[in-house]
Amino acid sequence: MKDTLPESPILSDLLSLSRAAVAPVRQYADAAADAVAARVTAGERISGKALEADQYAAHALAWVATYAESITQMAAWAEALEADGAFGEMEQLLLQIGLGEYLAQLTGGLPMSQGELARPADIGVAAEARTMATDPAISRLIAQGNTDTARRHLARLMVEREGATTFGATGLDDEFDMVRDQFRRFALDRVLPHAHEWHLKDELIPMGIIEEMAELGVFCLTIPEEFGGFGMGKTAMCVVSEELSRGYIGVGSLGTRSEIAAELILCGGTDAQKAEWLPKLASGETLPTAVFTEPNTGSDLGALKTRAVEDDEGWTITGNKTWITHGARTDVMTVLARTIPGTDNYAGLSMFLAPKTRGTDDTPFPDDTIHGGEIEVLGYRGMKEYTLALDGHKVPKDALLGGVEGQGFKQLMQTFESARIQTAARAIGVAQNALDVSMRYALERETFGKALAEYGRVYSKLAMMAVEIMIARQLTYFSAREKDADRRCDLEAGMAKLLGARVAWAAADNGLQIHGGNGFALEYPISRILCDARILNIFEGAAEIQAQVIARRVLENRAKTR
Amino acid sequence: MKDTLPESPILSDLLSLSRAAVAPVRQYADAAADAVAARVTAGERISGKALEADQYAAHALAWVATYAESITQMAAWAEALEADGAFGEMEQLLLQIGLGEYLAQLTGGLPMSQGELARPADIGVAAEARTMATDPAISRLIAQGNTDTARRHLARLMVEREGATTFGATGLDDEFDMVRDQFRRFALDRVLPHAHEWHLKDELIPMGIIEEMAELGVFCLTIPEEFGGFGMGKTAMCVVSEELSRGYIGVGSLGTRSEIAAELILCGGTDAQKAEWLPKLASGETLPTAVFTEPNTGSDLGALKTRAVEDDEGWTITGNKTWITHGARTDVMTVLARTIPGTDNYAGLSMFLAPKTRGTDDTPFPDDTIHGGEIEVLGYRGMKEYTLALDGHKVPKDALLGGVEGQGFKQLMQTFESARIQTAARAIGVAQNALDVSMRYALERETFGKALAEYGRVYSKLAMMAVEIMIARQLTYFSAREKDADRRCDLEAGMAKLLGARVAWAAADNGLQIHGGNGFALEYPISRILCDARILNIFEGAAEIQAQVIARRVLENRAKTR
Ligand SMILES: Cc1cc2nc3c(=O)[nH]c(=O)nc-3n(C[C@H](O)[C@H](O)[C@H](O)COP(=O)(O)OP(=O)(O)OC[C@H]3O[C@@H](n4cnc5c(N)ncnc54)[C@H](O)[C@@H]3O)c2cc1C
Ligand SMILES: Cc1cc2nc3c(=O)[nH]c(=O)nc-3n(C[C@H](O)[C@H](O)[C@H](O)COP(=O)(O)OP(=O)(O)OC[C@H]3O[C@@H](n4cnc5c(N)ncnc54)[C@H](O)[C@@H]3O)c2cc1C
Ligand SMILES: CC(C)(COP(=O)(O)OP(=O)(O)OC[C@H]1O[C@@H](n2cnc3c(N)ncnc32)[C@H](O)[C@@H]1OP(=O)(O)O)[C@@H](O)C(=O)NCCC(=O)NCCS
Ligand SMILES: CC(C)(COP(=O)(O)OP(=O)(O)OC[C@H]1O[C@@H](n2cnc3c(N)ncnc32)[C@H](O)[C@@H]1OP(=O)(O)O)[C@@H](O)C(=O)NCCC(=O)NCCS
Repeated sequence: MKDTLPESPILSDLLSLSRAAVAPVRQYADAAADAVAARVTAGERISGKALEADQYAAHALAWVATYAESITQMAAWAEALEADGAFGEMEQLLLQIGLGEYLAQLTGGLPMSQGELARPADIGVAAEARTMATDPAISRLIAQGNTDTARRHLARLMVEREGATTFGATGLDDEFDMVRDQFRRFALDRVLPHAHEWHLKDELIPMGIIEEMAELGVFCLTIPEEFGGFGMGKTAMCVVSEELSRGYIGVGSLGTRSEIAAELILCGGTDAQKAEWLPKLASGETLPTAVFTEPNTGSDLGALKTRAVEDDEGWTITGNKTWITHGARTDVMTVLARTIPGTDNYAGLSMFLAPKTRGTDDTPFPDDTIHGGEIEVLGYRGMKEYTLALDGHKVPKDALLGGVEGQGFKQLMQTFESARIQTAARAIGVAQNALDVSMRYALERETFGKALAEYGRVYSKLAMMAVEIMIARQLTYFSAREKDADRRCDLEAGMAKLLGARVAWAAADNGLQIHGGNGFALEYPISRILCDARILNIFEGAAEIQAQVIARRVLENRAKTR
Repeated sequence: MKDTLPESPILSDLLSLSRAAVAPVRQYADAAADAVAARVTAGERISGKALEADQYAAHALAWVATYAESITQMAAWAEALEADGAFGEMEQLLLQIGLGEYLAQLTGGLPMSQGELARPADIGVAAEARTMATDPAISRLIAQGNTDTARRHLARLMVEREGATTFGATGLDDEFDMVRDQFRRFALDRVLPHAHEWHLKDELIPMGIIEEMAELGVFCLTIPEEFGGFGMGKTAMCVVSEELSRGYIGVGSLGTRSEIAAELILCGGTDAQKAEWLPKLASGETLPTAVFTEPNTGSDLGALKTRAVEDDEGWTITGNKTWITHGARTDVMTVLARTIPGTDNYAGLSMFLAPKTRGTDDTPFPDDTIHGGEIEVLGYRGMKEYTLALDGHKVPKDALLGGVEGQGFKQLMQTFESARIQTAARAIGVAQNALDVSMRYALERETFGKALAEYGRVYSKLAMMAVEIMIARQLTYFSAREKDADRRCDLEAGMAKLLGARVAWAAADNGLQIHGGNGFALEYPISRILCDARILNIFEGAAEIQAQVIARRVLENRAKTR
């Protein structure tokens, strides 16, 4: 970026503006909740039916709440950095552009997906949005926050610091920076150089890599020390997942299954189950796979049909599962199955820790009672996805999680909180990967006699990626802290996952665009990053399901606090 | 969609609202042009440098102008249908939702890409946008146009008419409906059942299909009768391209190359060249390939380096080309090369009709002087893309188009108008294909005890696809009529291409989302449609280049009309 820049576009009173913006934004979000509540409350209670009938408005509310929390967390992040003397120029630009953009979207329309904009009128709060927009801090941020000059400035700083581990201070303690650096180095050395080839050849990630990850502690990070883990919190999990996924989503996702299994056992397992499984999961000796989805049942897990029947020897599991990631090369399945006959909802489901024999390339499913078939996929390769027909698969008595029936769904929902936080972190890593390769490309490629990065449409794309990555990051760390504080946080985790997935998808899409024709060539990693990013809006609760969970919880919280 | 619907959400005075909205919208677009002009005019003339420095604003203007034209064309379409007694419920809903949405986006923010919203303030016309929004017709359309109920109503009608050739009357004469039906049948019979397999196997579209297409007149459609063509206009080309691309983008794109070659020859060729080439192109006997892009030169074609040197026998062409679609199985290349030494801009370029030997699967490049390499791609397969090294490729004297040097770039730019119109039509076809498969899926798949299509977020996605398809269609037909009227129409063609590409990409993305996990499986056609749709924002002038062309032309037109 050669031309001289005009003087700094940073608003002189930025921090006080951001501080001042939070309350009116939250007020607006509350008004949105009130408006939806008024439409969907029957008597004292929220009517599920009415909520469903007003789904677009409810989901718009979910997005508004997500933006309000994003803005709150960004403001808090800035405040903390300032107190630490670490609120530098780049951080200021990230805050200013981020708030300016998200406030403008809140009032003018925010994309829930391409083609589905959510506007105040969709929720019935057009007047409240106008009021919010007249707040002096908010109107200044909207008008002067996300300007072309600000984006240009930010992009220039990014170019100066290309290769920096993050664009902007994360706001985390130094210990996390050390963790991050360690995994960044691992990803740079061992993952990035090979990821694209694994994808193109549709290969399993080599066992050697998994072993190295185990040594680095990927699988034991959040397991308590008494069970052989590091006993770290979910924030560490996020940092590690970000950097591994920045190398390759497949590598960043290996830990997801271990996280789900360990979390299930920690929250719901018996002491014996903890003692048996946690040390082996922590060491990476036991690799788990998560077996929930069925061909006809994905989002609506409560309706699943796979049965587990008890007899003197143990349980026999029968049913068709699908979309099972890493279904072959794993040692234990966390299986959700129906044990209470006559039920057709979540109350009849139980969770099993079902041992299986680890498959090889030649014999992916050695067990007689498991028939697997590979599903070819656009992206998110490296562990492969399978259909799994469980045909009378026998497991011991003590495979039932916690020794209790009918608790499987709730056990899983609690666990999904962690999984969604981890997925949000994966999304951040994927987005950062898109930014990394696209920035490099934009600096190297010239058109009309200039590097692409000099053009407004290109540096704006790069700047917005960095901004949204930081927003998603702060929201994710917030949800991680909530989880660590042992609070139910499907709301916060859902927000982080919802936003992170959109951010990663936009980053990959815009990153590919910067690559022009080359982005369409399989040879260029961005073509893979696009495919990888696309999964994030689908699995671990699709975007619409996430919005539904958020809307419900927002409305419930509102009801509680009155 | 089982539940009873509330009474019709159609505004009783819809047509007069739409009529009344056009003038204020165009006024707003003019104000936007004035604002950008004020920033980028140096003395009397637009400064290219200033325009480039203000690129985000300029491109925002391009999008505003595109929306203004879209609204104008939609209003005109409705008016004409009404006059014909064909302005039915579905057409009314398409108009109402489309205008409501596009007006809301104009005032609140429209997505130039994911992550890049264009808002009035970006152009410096926030006040003008507010004024526009207070116009009674516009404010009503914004508030009551695109409501959840309207989308639900539209989706219900769509479901009732599933399988209809188009959702809503196109507004074209009956003869075009006949053409459409013919090609729809061909696509249904001969293309759709095989497209996905061709893609997955990365195969060339069978010659048999190309021969059938030739018999149907695909390659001779727009060629004058004296040269063996049908002498139809560009609108027919659009209709055919839509329906073929709805079957498979590869099939819908076979004609693009013939269109480019024929158009080049018709506009710039000598009589002898016309007589030699046009009949063979028309019959499909000669298949052409378009050879413009180079490894370092895509958008900035004027800078290309391939040279053509004349001697007594003819011309010798040397240089590296890339991204050449259907480079192997073709008989003639339209090659843009530099003939005037010492130049480094468009003025030194000339166009050649360069014969080559058609390749086979075993010997894709039989000529000694052409070395080709296949480029593996995400989508848009079926003709394959190649790098082409022209290593002293000799062509006769009369291969120089029009027998004149230095005109190649302008000849091509004129031709690109047609190619972009045709590409806009391909985009519509791809979007329609996404809608077709996603609507089917949404009707078949049940979650939580209901078909997906019953849910607000799902029927909204489907409805918006249909709405935007109709908008892109009307804009495309408008550009086709401009071309047929022999007016320079890079402005209109650029708008149609710009919008069409975004519409197709959004439709594919949302269509995949409706498929949930299955959308990510290579087995499901939507996974291919997503990949195919992604090319549309890149080739035939990338989205940013298109916006640049539109912005420039809007500013030039403005200067002219003062
Ligand atoms: C690559 C990949 C890996 C996966 N790995 C695993 C794994 O390891 N283990 C496992 O158990 N599962 C796994 N899954 C499954 C995944 O969790 C499901 O695909 C996901 O939960 C969505 O379910 P579905 O595919 O059945 O979509 P559906 O539930 O059929 O939903 C389809 C679409 O409709 C929307 N929708 C559904 N219901 C509603 C509603 N009520 N209102 C509005 N919209 C709605 C959804 O948001 C989605 O867009 C994986 C999937 C993929 C693609
Ligand atoms: C599948 C496929 C098929 C193709 N078929 C053919 C064919 O048959 N014949 C042929 O000749 N070509 C073909 N092309 C090439 C295609 O036309 C080019 O890819 C396209 O013109 C873009 O050029 P590029 O790839 O060099 O991108 P670049 O010009 O390098 O542009 C990269 C990115 O930067 C943006 N950009 C560039 N300049 C500017 C600027 N000044 N301001 C702002 N943004 C800018 C672009 O919009 C794009 O997003 C094909 C390409 C593909 C991928
Ligand atoms: C859609 C979905 C959120 C559940 O919806 P639902 O069937 O309507 O279930 P509910 O939200 O009513 O929850 C059922 C029960 O679980 C409880 N529950 C839900 N989430 C919980 C959580 N995070 N912590 C504790 N309990 C929870 C509810 O409180 C409710 O209990 P109650 O009846 O005693 O009040 C759930 O099926 C889901 O997350 N689907 C996506 C599947 C997925 O992510 N798959 C990924 C596989 S890799
Ligand atoms: C970017 C792009 C629009 C040209 O930009 P440029 O180099 O700045 O060129 P200009 O717009 O200044 O045009 C150069 C000349 O051509 C003329 N011209 C441009 N478009 C024209 C048209 N549609 N009809 C007639 N003349 C045209 C201009 O008027 C100008 O002539 P002048 O200097 O006599 O006034 C062009 O290179 C382009 O379309 N690139 C994309 C490439 C593409 O689509 N490739 C697809 C391959 S499949």
